[in-house]
Amino acid sequence: MKGEIISVGTELLLGEVVDTNSNYLALQLPLVGIDLRWISTVGDSLDGLIEVFHRAIGRSDIIIATGGLGPTGDDLTREAIAAVLGETPSVNEALLEGLRAFFLRFGRTMSPHNIKQATLIPSAEAIVNPRGTAPGWWVEKGMSTIVAIPGPPGEMQRMWEIEVAPRLQKKIFGHFKICRTLKCFGRGEAETDELIASMYLLKNPDLGIYAKPDGIHLRLVAMAGKEIEAREMLDSAEVRLRDILGDSVWGSDSETLETVTGELLARLGLKLATMESVTGGLLASTVTDVPGSSGYFQGGLISYTSESKSLFGVEAGLIEKHGAVSHETAQAMADVARCRFNADIGLATTGVAGPDPMEGKPPGLVYIAISDHRGTRSVEAHYPPRRPDVKRLAVIHALFLLRQVLLELEPEGGHQWGLSSA
Amino acid sequence: MKGEIISVGTELLLGEVVDTNSNYLALQLPLVGIDLRWISTVGDSLDGLIEVFHRAIGRSDIIIATGGLGPTGDDLTREAIAAVLGETPSVNEALLEGLRAFFLRFGRTMSPHNIKQATLIPSAEAIVNPRGTAPGWWVEKGMSTIVAIPGPPGEMQRMWEIEVAPRLQKKIFGHFKICRTLKCFGRGEAETDELIASMYLLKNPDLGIYAKPDGIHLRLVAMAGKEIEAREMLDSAEVRLRDILGDSVWGSDSETLETVTGELLARLGLKLATMESVTGGLLASTVTDVPGSSGYFQGGLISYTSESKSLFGVEAGLIEKHGAVSHETAQAMADVARCRFNADIGLATTGVAGPDPMEGKPPGLVYIAISDHRGTRSVEAHYPPRRPDVKRLAVIHALFLLRQVLLELEPEGGHQWGLSSA
Repeated sequence: MKGEIISVGTELLLGEVVDTNSNYLALQLPLVGIDLRWISTVGDSLDGLIEVFHRAIGRSDIIIATGGLGPTGDDLTREAIAAVLGETPSVNEALLEGLRAFFLRFGRTMSPHNIKQATLIPSAEAIVNPRGTAPGWWVEKGMSTIVAIPGPPGEMQRMWEIEVAPRLQKKIFGHFKICRTLKCFGRGEAETDELIASMYLLKNPDLGIYAKPDGIHLRLVAMAGKEIEAREMLDSAEVRLRDILGDSVWGSDSETLETVTGELLARLGLKLATMESVTGGLLASTVTDVPGSSGYFQGGLISYTSESKSLFGVEAGLIEKHGAVSHETAQAMADVARCRFNADIGLATTGVAGPDPMEGKPPGLVYIAISDHRGTRSVEAHYPPRRPDVKRLAVIHALFLLRQVLLELEPEGGHQWGLSSA
Repeated sequence: MKGEIISVGTELLLGEVVDTNSNYLALQLPLVGIDLRWISTVGDSLDGLIEVFHRAIGRSDIIIATGGLGPTGDDLTREAIAAVLGETPSVNEALLEGLRAFFLRFGRTMSPHNIKQATLIPSAEAIVNPRGTAPGWWVEKGMSTIVAIPGPPGEMQRMWEIEVAPRLQKKIFGHFKICRTLKCFGRGEAETDELIASMYLLKNPDLGIYAKPDGIHLRLVAMAGKEIEAREMLDSAEVRLRDILGDSVWGSDSETLETVTGELLARLGLKLATMESVTGGLLASTVTDVPGSSGYFQGGLISYTSESKSLFGVEAGLIEKHGAVSHETAQAMADVARCRFNADIGLATTGVAGPDPMEGKPPGLVYIAISDHRGTRSVEAHYPPRRPDVKRLAVIHALFLLRQVLLELEPEGGHQWGLSSA
């Protein structure tokens, strides 16, 4: 099946927005058997859109369009599809009701501009969008299938995963192709690549390595006539990779370090508290991104000055002697977090976010400490000295350490990674 | 001048690489007077490339191609341009010498595969590339100009800045096109759209409206024979928009709410502290994304349980009476933040992040409070009940309120927004 992506939006042509949707879809399309041949980016002009859709229909079996489904005058994807197929949009009463209900739910008044979001053409079915006002369009006519999805990534990805991908998979007969991603932290891309070199020879599952914001991702893609066969191939490749990489593998697929550590905390019945300097709240914010985190996260302190560190119980003399950016201060902060919040585990970060040095210490230098009933430990790390990277990497690193400590605290036999298919 | 970008590379269609080159160029092209109309992404196939170049020549004045200039068999940009123009590539001796010298300099042996990087067609001139083995091609034929640049971003950006942009600027005599973006918060896209409807009639500057994570963005694009004329058109349109939208306009262009509030805090010499429940640290983290924020941010408390709220001084009786999610608790939290950290301003959030209700209150309900020497105020807000959206919107909203209070605290006459060009 030949596929094509049409990214709609003048903001893409002006460079105001990076087109991450196309990248997301490019990664997803092979999984439903679509061979992506073209990506076309086009502005919010009806003529331009009509030209692009017209060409796409001539050369592609499946066309995925993102964007241009909003309520305003420059949202023209619906109009372009209608024009190319020679059909006329009309208001669908059920969609209009849904839209009214959406506005009611949030106590807002619906503008007359929104009405066009409730229109369909005869060849189109609506695709539900609980996250926004724009339903998608699923259009089948002649040999072509056009799927129009809203542009905001949150709405787009949900609609793809829940509504569009399963339907395409059903539509496109073919081999089962299943992916699994293992996520690692602690080694660089080149080092990991060398360690797993032998695995590249397998071909099926095919292995790819990617440097991502939360570490190194290893992606396995298995292909087989039956789903169970593909899964077994993935399972055995996963076992081999985990043998090679050991504890640096912290999760798989949709797992994040915050969900992995959250599950361990909940299972062990342990409470966490944080005290942050260099990460400025990002550590606590990441922990609380997980629904249900109020069950194990007690709270946190953010001490962005030395005074505020001692305010909460880090000895002023200790800071003076060793500096605010030191093993000693990090450990004292972890202890303070644990005691202040009556938590089982205290996790702390201190360091230099940059761009300027602090206490003569360079941007990118970070200390992370963790405290539990057995004592307090800390590590020193050096990250690339860009402020957002320092914050992000320190949080990932802190959660990775938290995971290690939680695995140590698991009762005998508990420290067993399950296969992700389990 | 109508412009088009052609991004070459199968890796883009496989989603292995995000196409940052197109975004970079999209931001650069308006500055040299090119109106970007299309971005086409195409794989490493000669037929596909020929089709895309053929169409581009038919509709665009300036075509910028990135990628496909490497030495291997699947680097086919040169071959495609030659085929479309009906010309034959031949080895250019000067380029070949340069290539040999490049390899010598790095002590490497040149592969016979590299020879094709030293070819030209009669209509093409080479563009020097000190960073790699692939020179660019500058091709003029008939009405079209094709500029082929290597794909690696470091090589691409240098070649664009030093070699291509000045040459295009010289070539393209004509109109100046300048953009400005105003950023608003507090009204929906459709409502804002209705208010500013009269501004759409202007045509020049052209007005676009976009829903963004930090609110509504209004983009003005002015075109004129002289730069000063374009700027004056933007200035007068900005005045009209600000008249219509009032205080809901909080910034422009690259400004963010955290930089805007940070600058106000620094200018007024005021210190900020936070106490967060529903935002779980994201508010403090956003504030500390700004370099230099340690100059005005004292620190923060994250109280993710009712116990930890009273631990820091929010009266337990008050929480019991009004609930943790209430005006009263939010105000008490803002006061605690201000007092605990000896700050001038305390900013607090409490609410239900979801997915489950709390105290019988629905996900998405949030109270934000702000405390200064004059007293304490709070607002109630209802956001779409998706956890990440609730956190994000509460932070934007809190910073928006902080900005309003800081403007009130400015000495007489200080509360004047300057035009962004100032």
